[in-house]
Amino acid sequence: MSLNLNNIVSSLQRSGTFINSLIAGLTIGGQQLFSSYTFRCPCQVGRNFYYGSAFLVVPALILLVAGYSLRGQMWKFASDYCCSCSLPRRRISPLERRLACLRFFSITGRALVAPLTWLAVTLLKGTYYECAASEFASVDHYPVFGNITASKREELLAGFPCDRSSASSDMTLVRDEVVLLHRYQSQMLGWILITLATTAVLVSCCLVSCCSPFSSLQHHYWTRHLENERALFEQAAEEHSRLLIRQRIKKLFGFAPGSEDITQIHIPSCQDW
Amino acid sequence: MSLNLNNIVSSLQRSGTFINSLIAGLTIGGQQLFSSYTFRCPCQVGRNFYYGSAFLVVPALILLVAGYSLRGQMWKFASDYCCSCSLPRRRISPLERRLACLRFFSITGRALVAPLTWLAVTLLKGTYYECAASEFASVDHYPVFGNITASKREELLAGFPCDRSSASSDMTLVRDEVVLLHRYQSQMLGWILITLATTAVLVSCCLVSCCSPFSSLQHHYWTRHLENERALFEQAAEEHSRLLIRQRIKKLFGFAPGSEDITQIHIPSCQDW
Amino acid sequence: MSLNLNNIVSSLQRSGTFINSLIAGLTIGGQQLFSSYTFRCPCQVGRNFYYGSAFLVVPALILLVAGYSLRGQMWKFASDYCCSCSLPRRRISPLERRLACLRFFSITGRALVAPLTWLAVTLLKGTYYECAASEFASVDHYPVFGNITASKREELLAGFPCDRSSASSDMTLVRDEVVLLHRYQSQMLGWILITLATTAVLVSCCLVSCCSPFSSLQHHYWTRHLENERALFEQAAEEHSRLLIRQRIKKLFGFAPGSEDITQIHIPSCQDW
Repeated sequence: MSLNLNNIVSSLQRSGTFINSLIAGLTIGGQQLFSSYTFRCPCQVGRNFYYGSAFLVVPALILLVAGYSLRGQMWKFASDYCCSCSLPRRRISPLERRLACLRFFSITGRALVAPLTWLAVTLLKGTYYECAASEFASVDHYPVFGNITASKREELLAGFPCDRSSASSDMTLVRDEVVLLHRYQSQMLGWILITLATTAVLVSCCLVSCCSPFSSLQHHYWTRHLENERALFEQAAEEHSRLLIRQRIKKLFGFAPGSEDITQIHIPSCQDW
Repeated sequence: MSLNLNNIVSSLQRSGTFINSLIAGLTIGGQQLFSSYTFRCPCQVGRNFYYGSAFLVVPALILLVAGYSLRGQMWKFASDYCCSCSLPRRRISPLERRLACLRFFSITGRALVAPLTWLAVTLLKGTYYECAASEFASVDHYPVFGNITASKREELLAGFPCDRSSASSDMTLVRDEVVLLHRYQSQMLGWILITLATTAVLVSCCLVSCCSPFSSLQHHYWTRHLENERALFEQAAEEHSRLLIRQRIKKLFGFAPGSEDITQIHIPSCQDW
Repeated sequence: MSLNLNNIVSSLQRSGTFINSLIAGLTIGGQQLFSSYTFRCPCQVGRNFYYGSAFLVVPALILLVAGYSLRGQMWKFASDYCCSCSLPRRRISPLERRLACLRFFSITGRALVAPLTWLAVTLLKGTYYECAASEFASVDHYPVFGNITASKREELLAGFPCDRSSASSDMTLVRDEVVLLHRYQSQMLGWILITLATTAVLVSCCLVSCCSPFSSLQHHYWTRHLENERALFEQAAEEHSRLLIRQRIKKLFGFAPGSEDITQIHIPSCQDW
């Protein structure tokens, strides 16, 4: 039973779909929590746009950067292929170059999950877009705005997301229509984004499996090969490092830790430390 | 299963991302608890700024100092590389110097997680900034403040974060706008801070992986080597110290503790103690 | 798994950070419990100050004394280095003297954790300070206090921490402002205390790691050596004392307690007792 659980856990850890779903789920939950606590549109001329845009774009950028930074593979990749300063002598074959491209695309795909989820969720909810777009609504065709100066109109438009109760009933009607329009635009943008992302996933999956230098069996072999390489290398490095340290400790204390035959122990002088 | 759990726990302990997330999570939780219990803006002229700033800056400074102090590595580092008084004879090679720099940056990075999280969370929440900035709001363009003396105006501005019910409805409107403006400034500052921090993380990750004197495999080996060195040294030191003490006790009492063949015991004289 | 748990528990017990956090956490919890049950400001002229100060200072003093008393090391230290009457012949080397200083500072540091936490928590909460300072508030600039006699004013001021419902609405406003002012003073004092303590920790950590006569590895070895010495000495002393007593009992009764082969028993004569 426990072996079975282990297998399930380790196959889940290896499965990209599970991890991607987890990231997307956490992003959606975090967005709901975050926006209900902190988002309050300033409703002031010239500030709504920056405020709404910051809440839309900055978290997505941060999630993108975090997605790249947290992948250790990314840095291994960067230091192996991009920085030629440390390894000037090594030649990179065309096959290696194509495999590196493949790996870079797979890392980018994983890193894009969280920011795209954030953008999709916030656009479908519409609150941030409503705040950001409030000043740019076109209200020329409403008779209420006929005899109102430009600065006063800007102020009224900027106040739309805040639902001030002091407005007249005509203005409330206009406000409701503008808010509905922005909600419509935001959600349409969200659907377009989701459609584009899904198409991109489909196309890239096709491209990878068609244009890969490997057949599918070869690809499977290669993936496992990389994993095995890492595991066996780690084991060897561990043993090598332990042997080295044991030798050094023997010189300092006169015996290696865990050895049975202690002929003599040695009290290290201050010089030795 | 238990072996697997051990592996997961130990790999989590070694994983920087997990520890950083834990630190950030604890900081956010602590901030929520702390601020709901203790923060009450004084709402008095000349005091709001100091009070709000103290709640913003002092905990961040304390978290920074704690982050440095709690890392044993930091002191090992300081005593090994900075204080040349105790070890005047040892030469430090350029490679060692670069590795020391690398380690110092990694310690600093870990120490900055908690204070930056504190600043980001408090700025995004906005309560402390609201209190600190309340006296500096520019309200010259509001007609309500036209025929009010300077000292009375200062008092009114300082009272804004406290939501006193005695104010007129005009004043309440102005108050709401000023509070929204401060919330906007605070959250924008928060976003700018988060963006700068994220950029710094990205750039430093790039620099480290590009300019490190090690390739990624070497770096992995070196990290494990340091860990193994610490563990094996501790084991050897433990055994060495036990052997030494056993010898000394044997001289005092005539037998070593836990030994089976007690030929003779020895009552120590007053001189021996 | 159990081995792993044991390791974690014993390394936590040895880790100073963990113990300090535990002490601080217990102090905070105890303060919350204690103050919610027992603290009720007397609100009478001439008593508030003594009552509030007692709750602020006395528990801190008790915690300080307890911190010193509960450390067995402290008494070992005192009897070894301060009382020269019992061991007039032993010479103390300069290295020993520096190590003793180091140990004294480490014991003092641990003993200061609880009282400083108490002071910081109570000052940040502000209830005790509010009660102690209530009589010293300067209310000359409030018009409500214009035509009130000095003794009546003292009584009113002493009653501020109790929130008596019989006061007029003007007086309630003044009371709220005074309470906010005291809360401000108390929390600022708390922040100053915390900042000073943090700075002291940082400076002393630096000084210790720079001016220690040991390198970091040597220091680590020495700490473990002291612990092992204590543990093994206790074990040996226990066994030694049991052996001695068994021999003496055997001489008295003819057999040792718990032994299987009882060849003869011996009825002790009156002389033997």
